[in-house]
Amino acid sequence: MDSQRPLILITNDDGHEAKGFRKLIALMRTLGDVAVISTDSVMSAKSHSCTIFEKLRSRVVKEEAGYVEFRCNGTPVDCVKLAYQKLLPRHPDLVVSGINHGTNAASTVVYSGTIGAVVEACMNGLNAIGFSLNTLDHDADFDHLDQAIVKIAKKVLTEGLPKGVCLNVNFPKRCDKPLKGIQVCRQASCRWVEYFKEQYDENGLYYDLSGELVSDDIVPGTDLYAIEQNYVAVVPTCYDWTARNCLETMKDYELISINE
Amino acid sequence: MDSQRPLILITNDDGHEAKGFRKLIALMRTLGDVAVISTDSVMSAKSHSCTIFEKLRSRVVKEEAGYVEFRCNGTPVDCVKLAYQKLLPRHPDLVVSGINHGTNAASTVVYSGTIGAVVEACMNGLNAIGFSLNTLDHDADFDHLDQAIVKIAKKVLTEGLPKGVCLNVNFPKRCDKPLKGIQVCRQASCRWVEYFKEQYDENGLYYDLSGELVSDDIVPGTDLYAIEQNYVAVVPTCYDWTARNCLETMKDYELISINE
Repeated sequence: MDSQRPLILITNDDGHEAKGFRKLIALMRTLGDVAVISTDSVMSAKSHSCTIFEKLRSRVVKEEAGYVEFRCNGTPVDCVKLAYQKLLPRHPDLVVSGINHGTNAASTVVYSGTIGAVVEACMNGLNAIGFSLNTLDHDADFDHLDQAIVKIAKKVLTEGLPKGVCLNVNFPKRCDKPLKGIQVCRQASCRWVEYFKEQYDENGLYYDLSGELVSDDIVPGTDLYAIEQNYVAVVPTCYDWTARNCLETMKDYELISINE
Repeated sequence: MDSQRPLILITNDDGHEAKGFRKLIALMRTLGDVAVISTDSVMSAKSHSCTIFEKLRSRVVKEEAGYVEFRCNGTPVDCVKLAYQKLLPRHPDLVVSGINHGTNAASTVVYSGTIGAVVEACMNGLNAIGFSLNTLDHDADFDHLDQAIVKIAKKVLTEGLPKGVCLNVNFPKRCDKPLKGIQVCRQASCRWVEYFKEQYDENGLYYDLSGELVSDDIVPGTDLYAIEQNYVAVVPTCYDWTARNCLETMKDYELISINE
């Protein structure tokens, strides 16, 4: 690794062969030296989970000038922890995760292994960005994202991010018009409504999970609205979950007497 | 289930035999009818992960007047989803999770399966509270928490919580003085500093994870400070992770040209 070039750490949650992941690696190699660490298996919906009971292992699968690729048996969050603390020759200048095949916009962020990795990096004081594409189409096209990804990453490499803040970047699916630009947004409120389809096998009843994203908050200023309008949605994201607007109004909880 | 009494759903991430879990069930049975759903195995640090590739199963393990207990092969978040959407006779009036054996204060909230379950309930519009005790002592004493837990739960049952807000309640370890009271706090900033101890077995190198919580933010107004001062820390918690203080300052990202 050439210490004159920025060092960029890349991870994801869609597995090491994912198209969006390979695209992100190619793009980042134009900006600096690259260390890649991916999970052995697909880790969708693993959120911020990490490995505490099993043995965590990693191995180098490829190495050449300015490039090293590791694989790890843990989660995306484990990947970041291990790379940052044990595997890299120096602190990365930037951590990127993705490009996730599927949206991580709005409240779906809570389920995302892609964003789990980004938040973990941010908690350790590193600049971090998650990139996701709003489609689950099998043959999803990632080529309309190149310029935006490179330019956002370049800006973060040059200027850094505020302490405790990372970026959650979500792209619209390719359509017949070019992307309109970037919007800095708040996270829309939404939830997954699941259909637990009842199925039977030799062990009896089980549930087959599918669902759809439901939101009553697709309004100007939100990421869901921006994506719907063919903009790239950039949400400055933090790991302080305090509902600050309630700190004063809930002061009456302090009046509860707990020792009588 | 008697529809005249409140229905309280209880889950956790420490496994179904955990002392704090059994304590929480006993306390909640004084307030209403109770439905319990716990995971087959211990699910610490599973965060907001949910099951999408495996078959999800549940079964009744105990049923009596005003009480039903399920077990599920998924995560705490799966437990909430499944109970809420498939297993319960009606919407629960309150969802509680815990009492976790170990803190979920400050930024450690991101790793917690206990709080994952609480946030999932909150996203579905349910009143939800997570309770955790700040000790990992094997023989931890949970008896000093009874009054505070019952009274906080009663208040939420009576008054409800604001939309999109749940409570993350953390207790100090028992000491020789009674708890001083309740403080409504913001989440302190912290991180885990891990020690990846290098170990070897027949398959080669692996990492043994341990670590400690490090914070430079133990100041008045935070949960970590309240706990240190022997107060119960109540953090109103939300799933909107937008760093709102950056929405204006980061507007310059909108100037990036992405189509040339």
